[in-house]
Amino acid sequence: MPNPRAAMLVIGDEILSGRTRDSNMHFLAGKLTEIGVDLKEVRVIGDENGAIIAAVQALSRAYDHVFTSGGIGPTHDDITADCIAAAFDREIDVRDDARAILAAHYERSGLELNPARLRMARIPAGAELIANPVSAAPGFRLENVHVLAGVPSVFQAMVESVLPGLSGGRPLISRTLRIERGEGDIAGPLGELAADYPMLSIGSYPFQKDGIYGAHVVIRGNDEDEIDTALARLEAVFQ
Amino acid sequence: MPNPRAAMLVIGDEILSGRTRDSNMHFLAGKLTEIGVDLKEVRVIGDENGAIIAAVQALSRAYDHVFTSGGIGPTHDDITADCIAAAFDREIDVRDDARAILAAHYERSGLELNPARLRMARIPAGAELIANPVSAAPGFRLENVHVLAGVPSVFQAMVESVLPGLSGGRPLISRTLRIERGEGDIAGPLGELAADYPMLSIGSYPFQKDGIYGAHVVIRGNDEDEIDTALARLEAVFQ
Repeated sequence: MPNPRAAMLVIGDEILSGRTRDSNMHFLAGKLTEIGVDLKEVRVIGDENGAIIAAVQALSRAYDHVFTSGGIGPTHDDITADCIAAAFDREIDVRDDARAILAAHYERSGLELNPARLRMARIPAGAELIANPVSAAPGFRLENVHVLAGVPSVFQAMVESVLPGLSGGRPLISRTLRIERGEGDIAGPLGELAADYPMLSIGSYPFQKDGIYGAHVVIRGNDEDEIDTALARLEAVFQ
Repeated sequence: MPNPRAAMLVIGDEILSGRTRDSNMHFLAGKLTEIGVDLKEVRVIGDENGAIIAAVQALSRAYDHVFTSGGIGPTHDDITADCIAAAFDREIDVRDDARAILAAHYERSGLELNPARLRMARIPAGAELIANPVSAAPGFRLENVHVLAGVPSVFQAMVESVLPGLSGGRPLISRTLRIERGEGDIAGPLGELAADYPMLSIGSYPFQKDGIYGAHVVIRGNDEDEIDTALARLEAVFQ
């Protein structure tokens, strides 16, 4: 059976303006690869209702799982929850279970649960909450879309909350061979190897550092024996 | 006149598997912001013909400029040039001007211009070459799509080759105010400010470090006077 396919939607003007360098994509990519869910596409878009709704609908239809990051805080530019509700034509309002989580959290910290903070308890009808052990305000899952925070520490904690509930496939195994020769010299044999192992993904990533150049050849697949056989052949050719 | 709108397409299995952390998106975002071209969307996809062709066609239609990174080297997994040709229904073959650039480069370095390296001279009909001062093999522009390398040093050099030829709009100006209070406390006044300045983009980015928490409030726009006025009002409220 093929692995489940996933997409990610990164939401935030600050990424597209170059102010902030996103790190959530790289974190999620690594975690999904470990459990055998194939991340096939990532989109980054700004804080615009129409763009968010259209992207959520397109990705939700095309993939088994969708993960969003960003836009679920208390300020006016946090519009993700409303967009998700609109994308699935659901009602959205402050929900008692989410309000209770926030009330307990702010009581502990001695802060007021004011109207802005209460916005973070707005959850689309039918969604399931996702635990946030860092700062309490929950994410949620609606249909196949997991809605997570943008702050990296919170995003990461929410991903850890979600992962145990996903049924993955066979984890992707990868082996890397460092070859200190130009890509142009190894391309021929590498192409033949790729043709002989159509079930493996064989990638070549050139490097150049301190006057040494070459390529990292990465062999990826789900069958460890097949990977080891291909790697042995590669080593025999180049070392 | 509104600023030109751009999209980026990052091509590469290694980003989606979590092996490599992309840095080209952040670099391009900053450069485009400086010259007044608005980056509105980024997509990351794998080394698959169908996915690349579909994404190029969709983004080329929707935006004024498209920039791709990755997949133009000499190995079997470098399929971007062929996909771009297919997306625009153009012929593709080794082109004399590109071959001459490679021949001169490899003669200088004493390396053979073998069939694999010659693949990097395959250019779709009607495309214009983009200079690569780092490692010679050129990128190219076809219609409104700029096809650039994935290796960050080469990508960056190619972006610098392309930028002077783009006509930008008014550069985005941004001012940041650090406020050491929870986002929930500043959300109310911030929302009012955003409503009063609909031409500005006002974003709030929470931080929490060494026990201090608060938010960076970023005011972005094209009119410096308007930004300064909004910033002064923000400072008056919070400091």
